Amino acid sequence: MTAPELTEIDHVAIAVNDLEAAIAYYAETFGATVDHRERVESDGVEEALLKVADSYVQLLTPTRDDSPVAKYLANKGEGLHHVGYAVTDVTAALAEVGGTGVRLIDSRPRHGSMGASIAFLHPGDLGGVLTELVQPLKVHEM
Amino acid sequence: MTAPELTEIDHVAIAVNDLEAAIAYYAETFGATVDHRERVESDGVEEALLKVADSYVQLLTPTRDDSPVAKYLANKGEGLHHVGYAVTDVTAALAEVGGTGVRLIDSRPRHGSMGASIAFLHPGDLGGVLTELVQPLKVHEM
Repeated sequence: MTAPELTEIDHVAIAVNDLEAAIAYYAETFGATVDHRERVESDGVEEALLKVADSYVQLLTPTRDDSPVAKYLANKGEGLHHVGYAVTDVTAALAEVGGTGVRLIDSRPRHGSMGASIAFLHPGDLGGVLTELVQPLKVHEM
Repeated sequence: MTAPELTEIDHVAIAVNDLEAAIAYYAETFGATVDHRERVESDGVEEALLKVADSYVQLLTPTRDDSPVAKYLANKGEGLHHVGYAVTDVTAALAEVGGTGVRLIDSRPRHGSMGASIAFLHPGDLGGVLTELVQPLKVHEM
């Protein structure tokens, strides 16, 4: 079985306690502005996406105390949370990655922000890095 | 004073205990191959750069026990270590970022891998994220 091609670092996700404050200091420090903002209720997060070339810095904050990001902040404090890589076909990529023995957190793709199909891989098999595969929503050309 | 433009996520750095093993499982899982490999003695690290579009996944391992990455691994274990953003002029970017009150780990640019000029910013002012500014070496056109 072949390995999926990673076509982009889709995003680097940063867990923060105060989303408004983080948006403000990323704007002040780097001139980075919010390209998209969304609450993803299934993950218990609100996220702000700052565009850097063809990638995003994804600022994440929990919307409820029992969300995984809330637990991460309580245990580790603010910091780098995960990396998302773009793939062309997340269903095929999951099958390929699973075939190598890497544990899958999501055995099937589910909905992420901006209409993407996403799936998380287990950090224990990838150098401690929570890793997400992202199939971005195709925007049809006009 | 204006803010520096981040022109790319230059790299996402992952601290690992065993560089050869990490290279092997990134290759097996994602078909990612080593584009460049370098020991940076000033930082006490050996790094392997895996190209993803115009960015890199930078696998880092310490070359001596007193290097910052060795201490990171001892305290936190393997995982996401820092993010590097490309800028056009790292000297100008440092002055701009310093002017916003963000603490600078490197008050002047220094040499990074692949001939780049780099400088680190303090994670305490950036959501717990160790952040690097990278001015890549310009490759002259033939």
